[in-house]
Amino acid sequence: MSKNHKKYKKYVQKKAFTSPGTLAYVGKDVPISTVVKLTEFNEESCQIKEVKTTNACQLFPTDNYVSWLDVDGVHEVSVIESIGKHLHLHPLLLEDVLNTEQKPKLEHFGEQNIFMVMKMLQFNENLNEVETEHVALVLGKNYVISFQEMHKSDVFSPIFARLKASVGKTRKGKADYLFYSLCDLVVDNYFVVLEKFSEKLEELEVKIIENPHRNDQTSLYELRRELLFIRKSVLPLRDMFGILTRENSDLIHDHTIIYLRDVYDHILQILETIESYREMIENIQNIYLTSISNKMNSVMKTLTVFTAIFMPLTFIAGIYGMNFDNIPELHHPNGYFYTLGSMVIISIGLWFYFKWKNYV
Amino acid sequence: MSKNHKKYKKYVQKKAFTSPGTLAYVGKDVPISTVVKLTEFNEESCQIKEVKTTNACQLFPTDNYVSWLDVDGVHEVSVIESIGKHLHLHPLLLEDVLNTEQKPKLEHFGEQNIFMVMKMLQFNENLNEVETEHVALVLGKNYVISFQEMHKSDVFSPIFARLKASVGKTRKGKADYLFYSLCDLVVDNYFVVLEKFSEKLEELEVKIIENPHRNDQTSLYELRRELLFIRKSVLPLRDMFGILTRENSDLIHDHTIIYLRDVYDHILQILETIESYREMIENIQNIYLTSISNKMNSVMKTLTVFTAIFMPLTFIAGIYGMNFDNIPELHHPNGYFYTLGSMVIISIGLWFYFKWKNYV
Amino acid sequence: MSKNHKKYKKYVQKKAFTSPGTLAYVGKDVPISTVVKLTEFNEESCQIKEVKTTNACQLFPTDNYVSWLDVDGVHEVSVIESIGKHLHLHPLLLEDVLNTEQKPKLEHFGEQNIFMVMKMLQFNENLNEVETEHVALVLGKNYVISFQEMHKSDVFSPIFARLKASVGKTRKGKADYLFYSLCDLVVDNYFVVLEKFSEKLEELEVKIIENPHRNDQTSLYELRRELLFIRKSVLPLRDMFGILTRENSDLIHDHTIIYLRDVYDHILQILETIESYREMIENIQNIYLTSISNKMNSVMKTLTVFTAIFMPLTFIAGIYGMNFDNIPELHHPNGYFYTLGSMVIISIGLWFYFKWKNYV
Amino acid sequence: MSKNHKKYKKYVQKKAFTSPGTLAYVGKDVPISTVVKLTEFNEESCQIKEVKTTNACQLFPTDNYVSWLDVDGVHEVSVIESIGKHLHLHPLLLEDVLNTEQKPKLEHFGEQNIFMVMKMLQFNENLNEVETEHVALVLGKNYVISFQEMHKSDVFSPIFARLKASVGKTRKGKADYLFYSLCDLVVDNYFVVLEKFSEKLEELEVKIIENPHRNDQTSLYELRRELLFIRKSVLPLRDMFGILTRENSDLIHDHTIIYLRDVYDHILQILETIESYREMIENIQNIYLTSISNKMNSVMKTLTVFTAIFMPLTFIAGIYGMNFDNIPELHHPNGYFYTLGSMVIISIGLWFYFKWKNYV
Amino acid sequence: MSKNHKKYKKYVQKKAFTSPGTLAYVGKDVPISTVVKLTEFNEESCQIKEVKTTNACQLFPTDNYVSWLDVDGVHEVSVIESIGKHLHLHPLLLEDVLNTEQKPKLEHFGEQNIFMVMKMLQFNENLNEVETEHVALVLGKNYVISFQEMHKSDVFSPIFARLKASVGKTRKGKADYLFYSLCDLVVDNYFVVLEKFSEKLEELEVKIIENPHRNDQTSLYELRRELLFIRKSVLPLRDMFGILTRENSDLIHDHTIIYLRDVYDHILQILETIESYREMIENIQNIYLTSISNKMNSVMKTLTVFTAIFMPLTFIAGIYGMNFDNIPELHHPNGYFYTLGSMVIISIGLWFYFKWKNYV
Repeated sequence: MSKNHKKYKKYVQKKAFTSPGTLAYVGKDVPISTVVKLTEFNEESCQIKEVKTTNACQLFPTDNYVSWLDVDGVHEVSVIESIGKHLHLHPLLLEDVLNTEQKPKLEHFGEQNIFMVMKMLQFNENLNEVETEHVALVLGKNYVISFQEMHKSDVFSPIFARLKASVGKTRKGKADYLFYSLCDLVVDNYFVVLEKFSEKLEELEVKIIENPHRNDQTSLYELRRELLFIRKSVLPLRDMFGILTRENSDLIHDHTIIYLRDVYDHILQILETIESYREMIENIQNIYLTSISNKMNSVMKTLTVFTAIFMPLTFIAGIYGMNFDNIPELHHPNGYFYTLGSMVIISIGLWFYFKWKNYV
Repeated sequence: MSKNHKKYKKYVQKKAFTSPGTLAYVGKDVPISTVVKLTEFNEESCQIKEVKTTNACQLFPTDNYVSWLDVDGVHEVSVIESIGKHLHLHPLLLEDVLNTEQKPKLEHFGEQNIFMVMKMLQFNENLNEVETEHVALVLGKNYVISFQEMHKSDVFSPIFARLKASVGKTRKGKADYLFYSLCDLVVDNYFVVLEKFSEKLEELEVKIIENPHRNDQTSLYELRRELLFIRKSVLPLRDMFGILTRENSDLIHDHTIIYLRDVYDHILQILETIESYREMIENIQNIYLTSISNKMNSVMKTLTVFTAIFMPLTFIAGIYGMNFDNIPELHHPNGYFYTLGSMVIISIGLWFYFKWKNYV
Repeated sequence: MSKNHKKYKKYVQKKAFTSPGTLAYVGKDVPISTVVKLTEFNEESCQIKEVKTTNACQLFPTDNYVSWLDVDGVHEVSVIESIGKHLHLHPLLLEDVLNTEQKPKLEHFGEQNIFMVMKMLQFNENLNEVETEHVALVLGKNYVISFQEMHKSDVFSPIFARLKASVGKTRKGKADYLFYSLCDLVVDNYFVVLEKFSEKLEELEVKIIENPHRNDQTSLYELRRELLFIRKSVLPLRDMFGILTRENSDLIHDHTIIYLRDVYDHILQILETIESYREMIENIQNIYLTSISNKMNSVMKTLTVFTAIFMPLTFIAGIYGMNFDNIPELHHPNGYFYTLGSMVIISIGLWFYFKWKNYV
Repeated sequence: MSKNHKKYKKYVQKKAFTSPGTLAYVGKDVPISTVVKLTEFNEESCQIKEVKTTNACQLFPTDNYVSWLDVDGVHEVSVIESIGKHLHLHPLLLEDVLNTEQKPKLEHFGEQNIFMVMKMLQFNENLNEVETEHVALVLGKNYVISFQEMHKSDVFSPIFARLKASVGKTRKGKADYLFYSLCDLVVDNYFVVLEKFSEKLEELEVKIIENPHRNDQTSLYELRRELLFIRKSVLPLRDMFGILTRENSDLIHDHTIIYLRDVYDHILQILETIESYREMIENIQNIYLTSISNKMNSVMKTLTVFTAIFMPLTFIAGIYGMNFDNIPELHHPNGYFYTLGSMVIISIGLWFYFKWKNYV
Repeated sequence: MSKNHKKYKKYVQKKAFTSPGTLAYVGKDVPISTVVKLTEFNEESCQIKEVKTTNACQLFPTDNYVSWLDVDGVHEVSVIESIGKHLHLHPLLLEDVLNTEQKPKLEHFGEQNIFMVMKMLQFNENLNEVETEHVALVLGKNYVISFQEMHKSDVFSPIFARLKASVGKTRKGKADYLFYSLCDLVVDNYFVVLEKFSEKLEELEVKIIENPHRNDQTSLYELRRELLFIRKSVLPLRDMFGILTRENSDLIHDHTIIYLRDVYDHILQILETIESYREMIENIQNIYLTSISNKMNSVMKTLTVFTAIFMPLTFIAGIYGMNFDNIPELHHPNGYFYTLGSMVIISIGLWFYFKWKNYV
């Protein structure tokens, strides 16, 4: 919680009371400068060049190529601003690009742009937790701009690889197909994250069914929070892609719609999986609680058996420990042994009684 | 869980980062090769022949017959691909045919094809669990193609039997009626699976009401998971058949719509039954939890009765075990017997007290 | 559960794998043969005659009369089939008439027929449980056909009585008003059943609040199942009558719509009552669980008081039962009595301590 | 529950099997006869006269005045019937007027009448519970008829007072404004009832947080039932006024719509308040359950501390109460005192151990 | 609760039975008189003047300027009334302005005015709780009127500052942009309040996970109530802004819509955050309850271990405290030491047994 809240706090501090429409970066501080890669490709050729940040915008878009401007790192406001000016992007669009806390959204800016914010999720093996990355995509007439929070791993590298190698349909497609490929990549990553999640859940499930421990409640709680977090990143996508596949915009061709509907189907599948994990956590929680009660029952039975067997015996011993002048049994030569014998019989009797009552 | 997750993992590994639109089989490895059966029938005649896989597509469709191509096993990508090419099926359609993890979906590919993915459920008596089989149906102008995961049992054999025997309306019907018959068969199977489920649930219910055991929680949990699994397979069908019965496509005649509405009604009935089983599981869970508490109460009462009866007696024995010089009672000739008598009276009194308090 | 499941099983066995569209009776075996009553009435006259089954259909419909064919018992397929043929009823309609497990549904067969399946609920005083009866109604241009499962009591006898006596508007009305009267009768019965239910619930409520017993959990569970069952019979009616009152069909006149809306209102009222009973059961469940915990608390307190009072006393007795050579108190002439006195004081002190702690 | 159920039973007995459309009073028996007040007013004058029941209807409506017929007591069927005949009210409307169990509803009878049934709620200070009163309003072209169950308090007296005093807009308004005023009055009463409810809830909340008692569960349960009852009376109003404000009928002028929308807003506010009370009850229930568990914990700790401290001491006393010939300690001159000393040390040690474990 | 209820009571007392449409202030008594500030600005100039209350309205609106009338304090009915008269505001609008208990709402008064009631939330550090302030906005053709409950802090001061400083777009915008800026300010404040809330929640979460205390239940309950309260203030805004962004009114220009959609997005984000906090509270509640059960288990285990170890030992001591004439062991020279030894062995054995059973 602390991590998310700290991020969140920053957002409030930086933004809440500035004039709306003023550009400001909201997110973690990043030491390195923004990297801008311009890829221009058509079916025949594909050029990828790293451009100087501010001049990047002079070069494209051109009619012959599909241009893809990949901006890695959104912390340098001036870069984003200059790109925005060159392409006449709406100030609110740029604001959302700069705000790494922005929740997923889809917005149409007239006929000119389709704008999408998504969350790239990645499982960090070291921290054993899910990390989120802010990704913003702008689809224009024959260009795509992708903004991503600066990170160790470049999330779009598989697309670069495919473009270079001219494998698959991406090279043959137009800007909207590239746009789809980028969305598809982000959504495919959710499967990977969910798989990691399911592994953790399965592990905990086995542990709780076999031998529940008091820390498992906290682990369950953390899994629940993680799932909540994933769901929050995916849920808005359903409506977004629902709108994308129904609405007709000139920016998206009919034969790309069918691909976007495929992404939409994947999102539904992901949400359903999340829902079923949620229900499973609920059920595991039930098992855990029941097992606590069962344990308590078992402790109580142990206590009862010990108490109920030794109390009568101690009482009998107490009887013959009394100092009355006249206790005839005391003077019987075998009184002691008879007493011990009856004690054994009593304890065996009680034992079978509790056996019958299912206590032992 | 493990089984499903393992399948699931495969999906992610094979597919997640390939270029979208590339064909690849996703599912369990199957040692035998795909079997393709071509059935051509009209009201007068019906021919069923097993065709060599790749040449299968040369033969149909023809105008005089309704053609049904039944592909048993989707693990040979080349076979699927050649069929796809011959009939100009959309690449995404083929992708979904090959992906045995694809959730149920309905898709219209223009006027040409209606495509449906369903899950055939079957109860495996040996493993005492529900098995799922991937079934994909393609409805064309006068043909139906059915794809099924390779399995021991051929799920469509009742239809083959009916076609051969010319029983029922199937022979008289067109491709859309055949399509409906196949859907109906799959949906009817859900009734069988639910019946098996209800038997298991009923058994557990009786067991828990009569004599709850600590393993029953786990059994309940597994039933819940199984129901969740069934529901996941059926739920999308509601919307799919809802759309099928409302939309008008040239591929489905008006008099077939009324039959599809019947299937839709069955699906609603199945979902309602699932919902009521779910509520019953919830209630059984309640009974189970209450019974644990009741048991604990009963254990506590046993403990209390034993303790409360023997404590005073032992105390009295302790009194007369003291070594004071002057304890007058000790020297009374019948002191011992009076003491024993009062002990009996006290214990009887306490017994009735606890009887009255409902402890024994 | 067992009863319903057995019925259900039959359905699956008989129907699941026959060709769709083949007529077959699904339900309990009935020894007597179907009774068909034809009533022809208008404002002036009313004739009720029991017709020979297969010839029944020759006689009606006629233009001068409203005809009502009441078929008591749907187990003789041939009778149903011959009626169906005579009136050109759709095969799927007949299938639903024969299937006594069919859930409530409304279907329009073109302009010709409105078809409705309902569940008649009746409270069986002997078995102390709710029984269900399959009722199917067909509304035609100037006729109504009612099909009912064969039963001891003829459910429509009040209507027959009214028609004969020419009381109320039924005689003056057309076929659609008769249709409404039959629906109204079925829905009115739900009130009676719910009233019986509420009596049972109230009884259990009083019992649980005053003196909860461990069997009450099972009783609650059974009430819940019964309510679930009633709800399942009523719920589909809401949509059905909602559609009936909104849609305009030539078969239903405008001034009958307002009466059907009244039935619709009753159904809403019934569903709301069911919902409130459901919530009450939930709350009674809570009371029950709390009372178990309270009882446990009370048992624990008894145990604690007994233990905490006698332990110190027994300990003191133990002290003076030790055999040390030099225990000065033992030799004090009133040591014994002082000890007894201090024991009394200690136990009174502890008693007040626990009184103050609210344990006794 | 009993009270409501008894009323309800009457409904079923009287109505369920009569011909639909027959008029019959459903409700408590009332000894006094119905009182009918006719108020005719316009901006200039206002006349209120108590009319003889059956002739009441001869007098109005007139064009110059807004007429308001207030019928206090709906148990005299003949009065209601004669009014109905005079104004050509629909039989089903009259049936709902007579049925004091009718749930709130809104119905349009063509262009002629808008008919509304509401529940007037009033808090009975003596019984400390909410009472309900059946109120039915009929809006005609220039008249309003209000029917109310006979009661001690005349619920519409504030409106009479306002009309007489010519305060506010009511006198200037038309029939629809009067209609609105009556609705507004009924809805305003819900605020009063909810306020009383909130007082009771608050009282119980404080009590449960400070010192929960086992009867509080029952009190919570009754509050829940009361809230359920209030909600049932208010919930249908939301849809009713939603329809009133959206639909356009000639009977309601545009500038009255805005006032009705205000009533609609109040109803939303009431429903939201009910919802939040519901959630609060849920939470108080949680607090209560937790406090029971906490109490149990505390009892257990007391028991454990007593047992764990005195058991070892009694054991030591037992050791030196043994009769072995050779127990060296017994002969030590200060053995007794050393033993007592070590007992004190042990008990202090255990005390601090339990203090550290948070048991005391 | 008490505070809110007291406010609420006032509302009922003052309003419930007055004639609808009569103006009356509903809220806390305020000693100071209302302050009215008139700001007139366009891109070139900006004048802010405090106007005498009743004459305020003579001055505006003018065509050249955007006029903003900020009314600080709504307790002086005459001021509100005179403003209302001057601008022909609807009486119901004024009523809602005066009622500080009015829940958030949006209303269109023809083409003339858009009226909005919102709740300004602020976190009071001293009381450690959220305070609410009634804010009403009226948007006219080229003016905005803002009404606010009188408070220490002037909530709109950032806007004043921006207007004076001519920073941001506010000066360049029209009345609708000013309207948007005011809404945006109120919504931004919710982020601040939620952040404070999340801090409190996080604190409690850490506390409960690490060391739950019995007061934590009450703290959780209060957080829940606070969240409920915040939610109640925000929830209606979703629909309000949903309508604002979809409907087209002449009062709001197209390029302002996109800004309002931004506010709408923020509201969605806030509601989602609230929902996730709610779920977190639910989960923390679970952790708390489980920890109570775990504690109880641990107490029981302590009790069981003590009892089960000392009972057998005390019993053995009792055996050799019996006074039989013939107990051979008593006369063995080392009998005492052997006995002590076997006691040690027994207690060690039991210790390891409980260790193995996971009790210690």
